[in-house]
Amino acid sequence: MGNCMGFSDVCNRQKNTNIRWRLPAVCFVWQLSMIVLFGVFVRYNEESDTHWVDYRKEKNITSDIENDFYFRYPSFQDVHVMIFVGFGFLMTFLKRYSFGAVGFNFLIAAFGIQWALLMQGWFHSLDYTDGKIKIGIENLINADFCVAGCLIAYGAVLGKVSPVQLLVMTLFGVTLFAVEEYIILNVLHAKDAGGSMVIHTFGAYYGLSISWVLYRPDLDKSKHLNGSVYHSDVFAMIGTLFLWMFWPSFNSAIADHGDGQHRAAINTYLALASTVLTTVAMSSLFEKTGKLDMVHIQNSTLAGGVAVGTAAEFMLSPYGSLIVGFFCGIISTMGYIYLSPFLEEKLKIQDTCGIHNLHAMPGVIGGIVGAITAAAATNTVYGDLGLENTFDFTGPFNKRVPTIQGGYQAAGLCVALCFGIGGGIFVGLVLKLPIWGDPADENCFDDEIYWEVPEDEESVPPVLAYNNHVIPNKNADMRETNFVEQS
Amino acid sequence: MGNCMGFSDVCNRQKNTNIRWRLPAVCFVWQLSMIVLFGVFVRYNEESDTHWVDYRKEKNITSDIENDFYFRYPSFQDVHVMIFVGFGFLMTFLKRYSFGAVGFNFLIAAFGIQWALLMQGWFHSLDYTDGKIKIGIENLINADFCVAGCLIAYGAVLGKVSPVQLLVMTLFGVTLFAVEEYIILNVLHAKDAGGSMVIHTFGAYYGLSISWVLYRPDLDKSKHLNGSVYHSDVFAMIGTLFLWMFWPSFNSAIADHGDGQHRAAINTYLALASTVLTTVAMSSLFEKTGKLDMVHIQNSTLAGGVAVGTAAEFMLSPYGSLIVGFFCGIISTMGYIYLSPFLEEKLKIQDTCGIHNLHAMPGVIGGIVGAITAAAATNTVYGDLGLENTFDFTGPFNKRVPTIQGGYQAAGLCVALCFGIGGGIFVGLVLKLPIWGDPADENCFDDEIYWEVPEDEESVPPVLAYNNHVIPNKNADMRETNFVEQS
Amino acid sequence: MGNCMGFSDVCNRQKNTNIRWRLPAVCFVWQLSMIVLFGVFVRYNEESDTHWVDYRKEKNITSDIENDFYFRYPSFQDVHVMIFVGFGFLMTFLKRYSFGAVGFNFLIAAFGIQWALLMQGWFHSLDYTDGKIKIGIENLINADFCVAGCLIAYGAVLGKVSPVQLLVMTLFGVTLFAVEEYIILNVLHAKDAGGSMVIHTFGAYYGLSISWVLYRPDLDKSKHLNGSVYHSDVFAMIGTLFLWMFWPSFNSAIADHGDGQHRAAINTYLALASTVLTTVAMSSLFEKTGKLDMVHIQNSTLAGGVAVGTAAEFMLSPYGSLIVGFFCGIISTMGYIYLSPFLEEKLKIQDTCGIHNLHAMPGVIGGIVGAITAAAATNTVYGDLGLENTFDFTGPFNKRVPTIQGGYQAAGLCVALCFGIGGGIFVGLVLKLPIWGDPADENCFDDEIYWEVPEDEESVPPVLAYNNHVIPNKNADMRETNFVEQS
Repeated sequence: MGNCMGFSDVCNRQKNTNIRWRLPAVCFVWQLSMIVLFGVFVRYNEESDTHWVDYRKEKNITSDIENDFYFRYPSFQDVHVMIFVGFGFLMTFLKRYSFGAVGFNFLIAAFGIQWALLMQGWFHSLDYTDGKIKIGIENLINADFCVAGCLIAYGAVLGKVSPVQLLVMTLFGVTLFAVEEYIILNVLHAKDAGGSMVIHTFGAYYGLSISWVLYRPDLDKSKHLNGSVYHSDVFAMIGTLFLWMFWPSFNSAIADHGDGQHRAAINTYLALASTVLTTVAMSSLFEKTGKLDMVHIQNSTLAGGVAVGTAAEFMLSPYGSLIVGFFCGIISTMGYIYLSPFLEEKLKIQDTCGIHNLHAMPGVIGGIVGAITAAAATNTVYGDLGLENTFDFTGPFNKRVPTIQGGYQAAGLCVALCFGIGGGIFVGLVLKLPIWGDPADENCFDDEIYWEVPEDEESVPPVLAYNNHVIPNKNADMRETNFVEQS
Repeated sequence: MGNCMGFSDVCNRQKNTNIRWRLPAVCFVWQLSMIVLFGVFVRYNEESDTHWVDYRKEKNITSDIENDFYFRYPSFQDVHVMIFVGFGFLMTFLKRYSFGAVGFNFLIAAFGIQWALLMQGWFHSLDYTDGKIKIGIENLINADFCVAGCLIAYGAVLGKVSPVQLLVMTLFGVTLFAVEEYIILNVLHAKDAGGSMVIHTFGAYYGLSISWVLYRPDLDKSKHLNGSVYHSDVFAMIGTLFLWMFWPSFNSAIADHGDGQHRAAINTYLALASTVLTTVAMSSLFEKTGKLDMVHIQNSTLAGGVAVGTAAEFMLSPYGSLIVGFFCGIISTMGYIYLSPFLEEKLKIQDTCGIHNLHAMPGVIGGIVGAITAAAATNTVYGDLGLENTFDFTGPFNKRVPTIQGGYQAAGLCVALCFGIGGGIFVGLVLKLPIWGDPADENCFDDEIYWEVPEDEESVPPVLAYNNHVIPNKNADMRETNFVEQS
Repeated sequence: MGNCMGFSDVCNRQKNTNIRWRLPAVCFVWQLSMIVLFGVFVRYNEESDTHWVDYRKEKNITSDIENDFYFRYPSFQDVHVMIFVGFGFLMTFLKRYSFGAVGFNFLIAAFGIQWALLMQGWFHSLDYTDGKIKIGIENLINADFCVAGCLIAYGAVLGKVSPVQLLVMTLFGVTLFAVEEYIILNVLHAKDAGGSMVIHTFGAYYGLSISWVLYRPDLDKSKHLNGSVYHSDVFAMIGTLFLWMFWPSFNSAIADHGDGQHRAAINTYLALASTVLTTVAMSSLFEKTGKLDMVHIQNSTLAGGVAVGTAAEFMLSPYGSLIVGFFCGIISTMGYIYLSPFLEEKLKIQDTCGIHNLHAMPGVIGGIVGAITAAAATNTVYGDLGLENTFDFTGPFNKRVPTIQGGYQAAGLCVALCFGIGGGIFVGLVLKLPIWGDPADENCFDDEIYWEVPEDEESVPPVLAYNNHVIPNKNADMRETNFVEQS
């Protein structure tokens, strides 16, 4: 232990990564605020309140099974898995940042969902009769969705920020999300069941902009840790697969009851299947002797789910879904091969997980596909009632027609982009303040800075410890040698 | 192989851990008993029987979707994941007891659910017309719940007992559980949807009492194995997250149809989110330079789910749930830092997984919260019908009022405590008999004793193998050296 | 990197494993074909189409909750997890074939489900009015089921074939599956809810036959890689547990609404629980000093789920399920201990994962149990309406009686066997063509051939790297030494 601490002190000469007061302070203040705000504002809605028995009678609902809970709960739990295990494990690929990946993902998601319930509640679930936010299962799903945007952004800055920075990033991220979501879904009345625009485009550009502002010219100093080991790649596949498998639930979770949810699941299932094949094809085509690259398999296989988000609820048709997935697998894999190095070298955007390839580009594609599909909708394909139902051409929007809807969809995409980029630059500047305890360039991608890492190998004589690959260079003395630098 | 076996022989001079006859004998005898007892007693209930078509007509049920299966099956599968993956992987954190953690968890859960179906069936699902237990989906959930109590207890003795002991412990545990559950839920008519009292308080004190009776003064001899390595901590996070994510399903699985399940899920979701933040805060506050400790993140983040168990179904209100989670994160983390060492040194309770902090204290808190919330229930908040529905003030209990109910809730907590402590001491004494093949003090926390561990590194020259940290000291010769002892 | 490539070149002198053009070409051609065929043939069915609103009115359906989506979606997602995480991670047990296990499983499943939607659609979901296949949630489940057959087959050839071969194997496998399924379920009108015959018997004999044709007499050359390391065994338990936990969903996913699904879940739950105990018993009984073998725990514990597949929907009764599980645990474990070596030595069938013990024998047992249970069905046990409902004695089959049904069930089993063996031999011969880029005997079970494996240890001096057990012998020079051969 002694040595390790000595080593930490060395780092701290350059940067103070001691978060002993800052992290607890932020957590406590924010959690207490949540309690107060929830106390003032949040109540159960009529389907989760004990008055449901009266409500049921009043609305002439014949069975408890028609409580919205039973329409959405299975999807909710799948989405919940995507947020915590999916995003969390997807980022464990780094050889010694698995604690940070899964642990900080856990932290910011747990905070974000509370703040999201409030922010989204004010915009969408406020009961004007008593000024309270009334929550039910759909609010929980939306809170998970909202947090997904921030977790996407985390992917861009993975390993380069402190947990305090992540909490700040999440606070602003959720706030911006709720506003852009309100503008896109309510003001513009665009549809976005799976959140290609609202979640993925916004989240990705938010993260990329932050990463751009926080550019580290000397990040190469921790290059030896910016890669995977065999088992960390297997851990990351847990994340990939749970995201991939449950994406149909993600895109259908808040779709219309009945055919809406049903169709969204089918479209997503197909788009994702298609993406896997083109990802494998491109990965093999561009690597020497046709070998596959785990980075592509872990990430690009998911692009189809992102891109089919907006149109999942529409009559995209099964082959339309396959086509979307087909191109996204290609584009996303090409992004990893050609675009990521370009972004880093030329545009100074360091994107640890490659969220530009997994969320940004497919998200934009998803917005465009949604706009086109909406504009092309006809009464023949949808049926009169089906068209009205699917696009909610009711109330103040009862005069809207598909072509106009297409335009509003496109406008929604622009809003997401603006909020992502603008918000990201602003938050990036906030995070640049030297008060958040972020790691020095040579300590990026290293759990040692923020976590007690098991030290069972410490007493091993140094000469043998060079080979200690799972938890390498724990020892300050070792750092002095340059074995690690060579790797 | 030769060396390893030689090493095993050395251990066996002290203690006979050969379970060749005992484990198969116990498994066969018990499984055969299960078959006979199921043959005599267990049948499908009217919703899982082919006579459902007639029953449906008779009861005027309009659709198959009103079969209880569709109300509870999604929650059931989530609970099932918690039992087998959640508990199993949570305990894989030890560097070389992952096989035992996940494997024995699997064994005792698979046995326990069968015995639980019988025990709980006799108390709750006996059809007096034909003397048969009639089972359906709710029985499966309750069996999983019952086994959860025993798996919690396993956490206290992890690495220190043989599989035969675990099976004995489960046999008695399930039996005691069924009796205390009957007293609490039926005789006292207390409510405990998520089992804060029935499952967590009972299970934790049952395990702690057993561990107290089985106290090993020389456990330090295997201290070098009582810790984690990097990847074993990541494995444990799989368990943590699946428990955390699916806890809303756990607490809502057997709640009332409709608003009951809906509200239980919301309350649990919120309590758990709150717990994460205070756990992180406390962990950072009490570790040097604010680093986070994986032990806290893996365990204390779950305390809110335990503590909100009893009151999950009540009108605890969203901010009430946050408050419960808030304090549980603090108390549980403090428990790991201050109370666990105290329990071990002063009270002679060796608690491998810290179940006192994760289940015992939060369970008691949950019982108290439940009692207070029940006592404070009013017709204004619940509505007349809602109050009656939520607390089942019907039949012989139609005269009961909330304040009285609060008293019975508190009585229920005492019953759980008594059964846990009393039962644990008794079973601990049974397990002390020298016939169960438990490991010697120097072989605790070591899969080598009960598992064929892959031996691919054996031919590596000894001088290099010191560094073999994943599967260390396989080799008897190595044990002679004291490299390991230093770590 | 240089050395490794040099090493690869060495291998390639013997066999060309360069799949740079072949894999992408196959992926692109097949995915494009899928798009065209889906464009021509596949449409949404009436429950996933926007016309559902009209359909609902027309059919007098009172609520959206009666859309088939809500009956089957939770089970679907569980099955999806079994296919991608269950099968994928179950096969990660090999020390350095985890990428291939989980990655190729992903690839062939993603391709297979598309082809299955078409093949099964033509047989089962063709709308003769417009010549289109109309798909809904049940089709997605069936596609997953169909692919399960091919993934079982993959288990037999794991580590010994190229991804191109796997894709060919899947193309033929799905085609054969769809035909045998049609014959068994529609022509013979046999029942097979959990696919003991249709999925497991067919899939296993298909894979075993292929493996027999592709017999490698010199497979011993890569014997040092045909085994596990500690953490790869833990990864495999993720697969085991998700298969085990979600098997009730597998067997009930396409069972009849209401009591059918309910009963299938109960039967499977019980059979699996029973299997765990007898597997542990047998494993302990036949290993020295009663130690448990991870191979048995990972695989044989699942045999009960396979064997209860056909009869899951029947009135097998709870104790009947326990009995089936009881014997399957014994038989499957004995298979691993005695039969697998026999198959390899005498019958020249190299079965990497032991699918003969996990799928073939239990599948056949399942078929027989199904035939007997069907033949023994009586009006007393099932009720008049229940009997008709369970066995679909309607339409052209309204004259069939249980005894006759038993005969047809047995005939179904024979069809599955014939298709599996015959199809496997044929496809094996196709795969023997020297154009598919399969690995040389000394490169089997090695991810290095088809994957970019992380190379972070390369610069470690050779003398230390002997101990590098997670990613051993990356280095051509090291191979020259015989340290690895000793292990």
